[in-house]
Amino acid sequence: MHGRNSPESQLLGYAGGRLDRVDHIRTNPALLAEAFASPLARRLMLEGLDPVVAHGHLVMEPLPADARADDFVLLGVDERERPIFAELLVEAADGFLASPRSRGAATEVPGHEAALYGAARSLLSWHARHRFCSVCGQRSAPAKAGWSRKCGACGAEHFPRVDPVVIMLAEHDGRVLLGRQHSWPEGRYSALAGFVEPGETLEEAVMREIREEAGVATHGVSYVMSQPWPFPSSLMIACIARADDDALKLDETEIEHAFWCDAAGVRAALAGEEGAPFVAPPPMAVAWHLLRHWVEGVGPDGQVADPDPSA
Amino acid sequence: MHGRNSPESQLLGYAGGRLDRVDHIRTNPALLAEAFASPLARRLMLEGLDPVVAHGHLVMEPLPADARADDFVLLGVDERERPIFAELLVEAADGFLASPRSRGAATEVPGHEAALYGAARSLLSWHARHRFCSVCGQRSAPAKAGWSRKCGACGAEHFPRVDPVVIMLAEHDGRVLLGRQHSWPEGRYSALAGFVEPGETLEEAVMREIREEAGVATHGVSYVMSQPWPFPSSLMIACIARADDDALKLDETEIEHAFWCDAAGVRAALAGEEGAPFVAPPPMAVAWHLLRHWVEGVGPDGQVADPDPSA
Repeated sequence: MHGRNSPESQLLGYAGGRLDRVDHIRTNPALLAEAFASPLARRLMLEGLDPVVAHGHLVMEPLPADARADDFVLLGVDERERPIFAELLVEAADGFLASPRSRGAATEVPGHEAALYGAARSLLSWHARHRFCSVCGQRSAPAKAGWSRKCGACGAEHFPRVDPVVIMLAEHDGRVLLGRQHSWPEGRYSALAGFVEPGETLEEAVMREIREEAGVATHGVSYVMSQPWPFPSSLMIACIARADDDALKLDETEIEHAFWCDAAGVRAALAGEEGAPFVAPPPMAVAWHLLRHWVEGVGPDGQVADPDPSA
Repeated sequence: MHGRNSPESQLLGYAGGRLDRVDHIRTNPALLAEAFASPLARRLMLEGLDPVVAHGHLVMEPLPADARADDFVLLGVDERERPIFAELLVEAADGFLASPRSRGAATEVPGHEAALYGAARSLLSWHARHRFCSVCGQRSAPAKAGWSRKCGACGAEHFPRVDPVVIMLAEHDGRVLLGRQHSWPEGRYSALAGFVEPGETLEEAVMREIREEAGVATHGVSYVMSQPWPFPSSLMIACIARADDDALKLDETEIEHAFWCDAAGVRAALAGEEGAPFVAPPPMAVAWHLLRHWVEGVGPDGQVADPDPSA
């Protein structure tokens, strides 16, 4: 565990992986067999989709003597040249909701280990929910060291999903738009978010989501940062947009309440102050970093620096 | 058709859609039935996954009298309040390769119509390859006006894929890295590209792909722009990274040849000059816009402007 304001406690969760993903081994059966047989090979221990943590680290063990390579995915090779595997789940997993233990991994182990766990969780939950070929309905089987599935019946190949999600602040006159969902803990507000759909750019997705959820037209979208989010396999893409005006018309099925918050309020919430106008998301979440990025761009006069005068 | 250097001929393909995607109608059966029954409703005409183009526009027709709403997806409502539908394919479609006609749409019709076609193509090819539930192998059925599929057997809900792809220039000492694949037309070079994998940020994916394909270590990744690419359903995310050095070690299964090109060479290729050092990708491709973005940042002294001195 780390103190609230230590640098470790402010790490973006599940980012910063250090494994070499060794694409050339995945597709080479001889190299894959060699990695699996290596005395250095390790198995990332999991309970279902939850991590096993001891002494502040993910637990890794040698592969069992009777292990079959077909039952494992190769996550990559670590800095100590150890091939790291994870065993496919026998039972189908729901896998969409983040259990407390799986969220805990983001802060209980070093950041690069949380990233390794996140990759494993996304990959294993994908296999668990893709045992059958979506083209023909027959059973498919893992291929390429767990980085695809092949259908023996129709020949289709399927690849793990990565679902891009936009998460964004609309900014207007020195304030940003924050919303909360019905299910969230009391007082929690965050950036709006939604899945990117086929046929739109990131920037178009940002503008569509803010309009759908809050009724606000925006322009001048700028990209800030991204984060892999393993529940089950999203890619969070954090952006800031400029609102045309500040009138709200909420989609009340999605958003319970929303409000415009100034930089002082955001700073108080990020610092966890008691009198803050809202409870910020945790630092493992990209929304926390997006809020910090925004307040760092607000000058002492309360004016927002203009990252792109042409926008 | 438009002239080579007219503004229309330089539109980013499949971006700039103008439909209101009417999320609130998708999930409301009464509103959906009303849209389907509207005399304004139109069907986007397709032949398989190919567009039907006449007089420089996509062909739209009234819905057939015997049409069933379950056989159609609702793409959205256009600026003339017309609900635009597309019919699901009866036959499974391969759908991965871009036919000449489907690529032609990007330049033969106005940009916002190409975007509408791209969204339809991605959605229809997804349905065609996801007739069966990947969780249990039973037949699934379209739901939410074609924006999801539900499995009646196990209850699973499946959503259309959007596969994020990074496409990027590595920059070193006033030159950028360009590569070509074995199958490309003679002389064609472009930015390197690859799918984002579970468990990595966009920036990490950029660095991994450049290292895998060209053996070059990079840092300081910056986002430039994005594009929906409907073959079958990618989201192209264009970035620039700074290379640590310019020594190349190519992955020759992926890359036939690669070289570092200076700004004068890139400018000549973008202008389509005969003596250019390579043949640029077409302006419909985000790689063309990424190259233009890069050369516009190169000063008269050949030095690249530093977008972020802290990087």
